[in-house]
Amino acid sequence: VLVSRVEPESAPLPARLPAGRPKGQAVREIIETLVDSLGPGAPLPSERRLADHYGLARMTVRTEVDRLVAEGTVYRVHGRGSFVAEPRVAQAGVFSSFSEDMRARGMTPGSIVRAQQMIEAGPFLAGSLEVAPGAPVAEIERLRTADGTPLALERVYLPAERLPDIGGADLEHGSLFELLGRRYGIELDGADQRVVAVPIDAEEAALLEVEEGAPGLRFHTLARDTEGKPAYYATSLFRGDRYEIELRQKRPEPRG
Amino acid sequence: VLVSRVEPESAPLPARLPAGRPKGQAVREIIETLVDSLGPGAPLPSERRLADHYGLARMTVRTEVDRLVAEGTVYRVHGRGSFVAEPRVAQAGVFSSFSEDMRARGMTPGSIVRAQQMIEAGPFLAGSLEVAPGAPVAEIERLRTADGTPLALERVYLPAERLPDIGGADLEHGSLFELLGRRYGIELDGADQRVVAVPIDAEEAALLEVEEGAPGLRFHTLARDTEGKPAYYATSLFRGDRYEIELRQKRPEPRG
Repeated sequence: VLVSRVEPESAPLPARLPAGRPKGQAVREIIETLVDSLGPGAPLPSERRLADHYGLARMTVRTEVDRLVAEGTVYRVHGRGSFVAEPRVAQAGVFSSFSEDMRARGMTPGSIVRAQQMIEAGPFLAGSLEVAPGAPVAEIERLRTADGTPLALERVYLPAERLPDIGGADLEHGSLFELLGRRYGIELDGADQRVVAVPIDAEEAALLEVEEGAPGLRFHTLARDTEGKPAYYATSLFRGDRYEIELRQKRPEPRG
Repeated sequence: VLVSRVEPESAPLPARLPAGRPKGQAVREIIETLVDSLGPGAPLPSERRLADHYGLARMTVRTEVDRLVAEGTVYRVHGRGSFVAEPRVAQAGVFSSFSEDMRARGMTPGSIVRAQQMIEAGPFLAGSLEVAPGAPVAEIERLRTADGTPLALERVYLPAERLPDIGGADLEHGSLFELLGRRYGIELDGADQRVVAVPIDAEEAALLEVEEGAPGLRFHTLARDTEGKPAYYATSLFRGDRYEIELRQKRPEPRG
């Protein structure tokens, strides 16, 4: 359906709610279908129109729109109504850099380096990076942006003994993956990642421009080079309202 | 390190904090290393002991423990201190059922069927399941438990025309995957999943036994059989404090 933008009161609505489920759930399905067919930024029918059209209590419609707002599917503008939110940026099933991910989606990746320093490996980093406790580690903290909007807060830890002068590298303007390849001849092979849903704390929320306590996806990543050696360890906190994971999964082969 | 349980004041602490980073971050690394080496339920050193041992303000230590509590790594018992939380249950990189996942981890899966009814396909379900709008769909809502603890809230939608009598099937005591195979000869091949971090709303929070607004992972799953036909569509909301995703990712093959 090619409807790029319609007026709030003119979006076509199915004549009746799908039957056999609670009315709130039914009206949510109607709105979700509109969200899919209209583009980001398109106005949605008002809660009043939805309530009148389907003979529902305003509160019922409001509860469902609230839920879609909380999930980041819809946003409200005071006095103007509800609109279709930007789609979430999906992470594909391969190990790609933030810059690659954003470019593949037609967005311009950006970095603001917030801290760049040498630290010594504590027990956790020593174990992860396979270096001696106390060995030098470069810590780089970056705010990652897509088309200028903050999307993730990333802390990368690199084994400095294997990467001379990494502490002074310019990571504001370049990709870490490209730097590792070009300057150090390190080709990344893959990564083990753990992803956890966490509440975004006050300090992180201010940087990511979300409410304190909003849900985020925290990635813990250990990247290895083609020889199997750890290349870096990173934690990245992504805004839950703007980022999602896409998985294409297969059933394991049957035994026997 | 084989330390299954130690007294609160006897856990061994490194003599000093790892250098070169903020003290809060350094003490968090110490606690995280203790969490890894001690088992679930093990008591952690008190905030007072950590503060005294490393010459930190109590508030600094408290902030970091708060963060670990918010992430579900640590829990507090009033008047008794902090303890290592149960590890999160990880989702492997293959398409497995909840029952298979839990059994693989030595836990007993359980289901409480909260609703089981026939509905008619609205536009979204009709498109996903590749049935006509208005076609009958079986909707089954289950609370999924592991060793009796609520872990996820799942809604499954099945195309009823292809699955006679699915509306009356017993899904309280059996696995959906097993039922599809045994009764209908449907072998699942794989699934496309989207995973989003969302705040858990009041009604869901009561069922999952978490605070309202706590972060959860919502999976949207479209499962297909070996002929490529949609077998079901499901949404599952997992507690963020007890569930995580594990990904083993590979770099895409270089071009040329």
